[in-house]
Amino acid sequence: MASFFRDNDDLQFCFEKAIDWETLVELTEYGYRTEGGFKSKDEAIGFYRDVLDSIGQLAAEEIAPRAAVIDREGATFRDGEASIGPTMAKIFERMREQGLHQLCLPRELGGLNAPLMLYFMAGEMLARADVSTMAHFSFHGGMAMAMLAFSVHEGSTVVDRDRGRIENTRFYDAIAEIASGEAWGCMDITEPDAGSDMARLRMRAEEGADGVWYLTGQKIFITSGHGKWHFVIARTEEAKADGDPFAGLAGLSMFLAKAYEDAPGGTRKRFVTVDRIEEKLGHHGSVTAALGFDKTPAVLIGKRGEGFRLMLLLMNNARVGVGFEALGMAEAAVRLAESYAAERKSMGKPIARHEMIADYLDEMRTDVQAIRALAVTACYHEEVSQKARLLGRFADVATEDERKRLARELSAHAARSRRLTPLLKYIASEKAVEISRRALQIHGGVGYTKEYGAEKLVRDSMVMPIYEGTSQIQALMAMKDTLMGILKSPGDFARRVAQARWRALSSRDPLERGVAQIQSSSLSAQQYLLTRTALHKVKGLGEVPARRWSTALAKDWDPKRDFALAMLHAERLTRILVDEAIVEILLEQSKRFPERRDLLEAYVERAQLRVRGLHAEITTTGSRILSALAGNAPTALAAE
Amino acid sequence: MASFFRDNDDLQFCFEKAIDWETLVELTEYGYRTEGGFKSKDEAIGFYRDVLDSIGQLAAEEIAPRAAVIDREGATFRDGEASIGPTMAKIFERMREQGLHQLCLPRELGGLNAPLMLYFMAGEMLARADVSTMAHFSFHGGMAMAMLAFSVHEGSTVVDRDRGRIENTRFYDAIAEIASGEAWGCMDITEPDAGSDMARLRMRAEEGADGVWYLTGQKIFITSGHGKWHFVIARTEEAKADGDPFAGLAGLSMFLAKAYEDAPGGTRKRFVTVDRIEEKLGHHGSVTAALGFDKTPAVLIGKRGEGFRLMLLLMNNARVGVGFEALGMAEAAVRLAESYAAERKSMGKPIARHEMIADYLDEMRTDVQAIRALAVTACYHEEVSQKARLLGRFADVATEDERKRLARELSAHAARSRRLTPLLKYIASEKAVEISRRALQIHGGVGYTKEYGAEKLVRDSMVMPIYEGTSQIQALMAMKDTLMGILKSPGDFARRVAQARWRALSSRDPLERGVAQIQSSSLSAQQYLLTRTALHKVKGLGEVPARRWSTALAKDWDPKRDFALAMLHAERLTRILVDEAIVEILLEQSKRFPERRDLLEAYVERAQLRVRGLHAEITTTGSRILSALAGNAPTALAAE
Repeated sequence: MASFFRDNDDLQFCFEKAIDWETLVELTEYGYRTEGGFKSKDEAIGFYRDVLDSIGQLAAEEIAPRAAVIDREGATFRDGEASIGPTMAKIFERMREQGLHQLCLPRELGGLNAPLMLYFMAGEMLARADVSTMAHFSFHGGMAMAMLAFSVHEGSTVVDRDRGRIENTRFYDAIAEIASGEAWGCMDITEPDAGSDMARLRMRAEEGADGVWYLTGQKIFITSGHGKWHFVIARTEEAKADGDPFAGLAGLSMFLAKAYEDAPGGTRKRFVTVDRIEEKLGHHGSVTAALGFDKTPAVLIGKRGEGFRLMLLLMNNARVGVGFEALGMAEAAVRLAESYAAERKSMGKPIARHEMIADYLDEMRTDVQAIRALAVTACYHEEVSQKARLLGRFADVATEDERKRLARELSAHAARSRRLTPLLKYIASEKAVEISRRALQIHGGVGYTKEYGAEKLVRDSMVMPIYEGTSQIQALMAMKDTLMGILKSPGDFARRVAQARWRALSSRDPLERGVAQIQSSSLSAQQYLLTRTALHKVKGLGEVPARRWSTALAKDWDPKRDFALAMLHAERLTRILVDEAIVEILLEQSKRFPERRDLLEAYVERAQLRVRGLHAEITTTGSRILSALAGNAPTALAAE
Repeated sequence: MASFFRDNDDLQFCFEKAIDWETLVELTEYGYRTEGGFKSKDEAIGFYRDVLDSIGQLAAEEIAPRAAVIDREGATFRDGEASIGPTMAKIFERMREQGLHQLCLPRELGGLNAPLMLYFMAGEMLARADVSTMAHFSFHGGMAMAMLAFSVHEGSTVVDRDRGRIENTRFYDAIAEIASGEAWGCMDITEPDAGSDMARLRMRAEEGADGVWYLTGQKIFITSGHGKWHFVIARTEEAKADGDPFAGLAGLSMFLAKAYEDAPGGTRKRFVTVDRIEEKLGHHGSVTAALGFDKTPAVLIGKRGEGFRLMLLLMNNARVGVGFEALGMAEAAVRLAESYAAERKSMGKPIARHEMIADYLDEMRTDVQAIRALAVTACYHEEVSQKARLLGRFADVATEDERKRLARELSAHAARSRRLTPLLKYIASEKAVEISRRALQIHGGVGYTKEYGAEKLVRDSMVMPIYEGTSQIQALMAMKDTLMGILKSPGDFARRVAQARWRALSSRDPLERGVAQIQSSSLSAQQYLLTRTALHKVKGLGEVPARRWSTALAKDWDPKRDFALAMLHAERLTRILVDEAIVEILLEQSKRFPERRDLLEAYVERAQLRVRGLHAEITTTGSRILSALAGNAPTALAAE
């Protein structure tokens, strides 16, 4: 049996060697205290491996060969009901039989209690097979997990602290329904006038005299929006502040609404209408719905005005998920290109042996492996921080010291996850597009036809840099977090600068020097942006030692207003941050596993030059555009 | 009336100011000696302006608003006949009425005798409206012109030398049929096993006892291949040389075949069968046919074995045409993005005023204008060299001196056209893809739907870097021409190096210094590749002065075998050559028209950094991949 797990050495490396299962399994298995749970790390890993292999088989044997048919059948919309095509429906029948929608749910809710890591690795393999299938899949188990997370957050889940067992949870029925495969959920955020800019959301929520909330308005671009269970962000109050475009975020709240109810006779009563489904460039198998709410009853999750915060709670998870999704597509594209290039002959040899194509393929393969290392690392920190938080909440921790240690670790993991997640979402999405396009180009004319699959990957990939926060939003987040981080602990920053410089000069290992040079360039670009940004406010700050910036700036300084140059260069900085994060991860791996040095070497070779170029762009350009935006005449060449 | 000519300031600048009409009109009007022709440059230009405006109106008013419908209707295939959709058919009816297919044909063949420049500018506007329409359009008049060119080349066209009037031409009937809009042609080259690699073409041509040639085999990816008149490249003899993958080119010949004949009763007899049409990513309005030949009668053009050379004769033309086509798509994409970004609000202002988006839009607009300058320049040199060649052939030139001057000019224009054409084809195609993708991204979610047109541009653009010679083929040609050019006149090269260095240091104008720095980097990259390539053969050549390379290398040196490093970096070098050519053209324009300085400044700002980065990639990487291709273990970091 073919398997997208077993045929993928790099994925297997990540599974077998790159993950600290010790920590992850212990957290997932609640210190091995749960009833009917695994009693050791090895027992758990053995099970995880089997699960991945079986999903890998499903992906390779049953989904991938049908990807073109799923694309052709598309989703349909008739009489107010949307549905996936018959081929995809059959695959979901198989998934339901195999219990895949329960993968990560706790055992006491009928689940297999697998870690998120497994869910995401499965997601990569499913996306490699067919991204529409993967996307719809994630709106099953993923939504059930979100219900649980929200309930835990608002305090409506009761846990037996000794055994780490959930006794009761607010959305139990919905979770059970999703776990059984009989329903799925979706996340309703975007509106016609509000995409990246959530402050502009207008859907209203009003509390009736009966204490029930009622939602009225429209939502668009809702993936798998024909589902039963809808998380909906709606406005419970107007929140306007003159001139502050973010004020609108304050009045948002999060709701759960049931879209329909099926009566025993087979009739369906709808509370949320499906108004149309989008005709899209790709993801044809996937339903993307425009939804209508007209006094739709819903329950409030958490508190009024907490909607944006609750969305953020799930956001890292969702973005890590998209990272793995895009990775799966990139993996599919590389393999398609590799196998075509190995067979197609031109000028007396396979085109894979033509220098230019060999260079493309090398870069594509290197990038995919590098992104996988980043994805697994981001997922690890996200999951550990989430689970440690739960444990901190529900477990009785022995001592005060233990509690403090746990809190410190939690915050370190959370910080790493927060750092890596936008980088992963950004680079995996962008590379999925770039690598798919390369795969098409390597195919030449046949790549442009429907026959070989490359054009489907191009179509499917193009939404990756848009949904779950555009690439531009990721870049802005990464930039702001990075620069604000420096302001928060300038001493740390100064230390990192010194260390990177020292290692760039003194390390005996040329690869370690290469990594340190990339770190140095990254830190230098950050420093440049911060001082230039700051210079607009405080003259002469360039001469103030970094450790005193915080004090010098904090008073009269509004990042939203003063970040123009950094916003202009946010994407360039993000590309540097991506390279920096990846080489750090790969260096770490190389130290423990020498077989990873080739990958690190190939990545560093390209990243060093790339980072140098981006650094030059950041430090010598931008004033022309900023002047134009300020309404001034263009300035002379910034480089002059 | 809206017009894609009048609404486009940059296109109008090119038309009104950037073109040396003096020379072009004189050549086109045969020194104003043709009967019924224009009697002055201004008279001609006035007419050209009206023609462009009227085509601009057709494009803006009748084609662009129907682009989405044309895409949806697509091309159809039924009972062995392919056809364009009804909406596109109506547009072609209008074009026929307006006599557009005769635009560039000589007056004596019923044409308007417009220059190629007009044809290509019209092509840009049509492509901006809908690329399928533009592509099909080019297989009308374009093919008639090709018939004339082939006939002139083989000597089967008789010209009245005094009046520059064609008395007779071999393919008169076919040309007249095309000019009237009743038929069109196509160019049948690609086969299932032979795309970029024409040496592998297998279609057979056999001469019957009756002196007629018969073609047998298959052709694929034939744009507008349901046409009546087919140029076909077929094999008249096997030409094998052990180990030489290019030997197969020698046995190719060029034919003209009639695909069908319509009997008066309405029945059609087919000599070339349409076997299927391709399902493609884009260009849905356009027919892309797979054709079958089974003893199809055809006439030989030129001599046996001359097929590849004859194809090259038209190739520059065709590639310039694709350059304008891609430019039109890029123009459409920029405008779509600009108008969406001006309207869509986010975070309190139109997204066009967000720094990152402003930067994107600035780069997109700058690139499109730069590519237009390159396109117009490439077209100018191509057309002047073609027409001067014709004139040299048919006109009685007064003196020997005059003849020599003409020959020198001709060869200078031909060299410039040969230099610029692959650069134009390369960059216009790549940028059409990049800019379309950016336009989609700027639209966010709605960009991914069929509603706004961005996704159509993405789909349509993706074939540009593939057809008429892939980007990789353009890069290889540009690299080889450039490096071989140095070998042919190393003295020239040394002079250019010295001049660029001098100007980079001494020029008073910062923009001129910027241009000279780009030239210097380009020359340095060329020199590096040549010496490194050469070093494999002749040790210590690095120390030989450039003017003696030619002698040192010529003997024991086979470029096809020894160019590995240059082939690896061909695309990087090509990107440098593109930037160099563009800044040279824009600097030239800026000196005459100060209003062009802003464009030059914006372009140089980005190009300087880009070229520096590419130079670093060329001079520090590549050995790892080459070692791997040679079967060796990967080397240490090339940068070390």
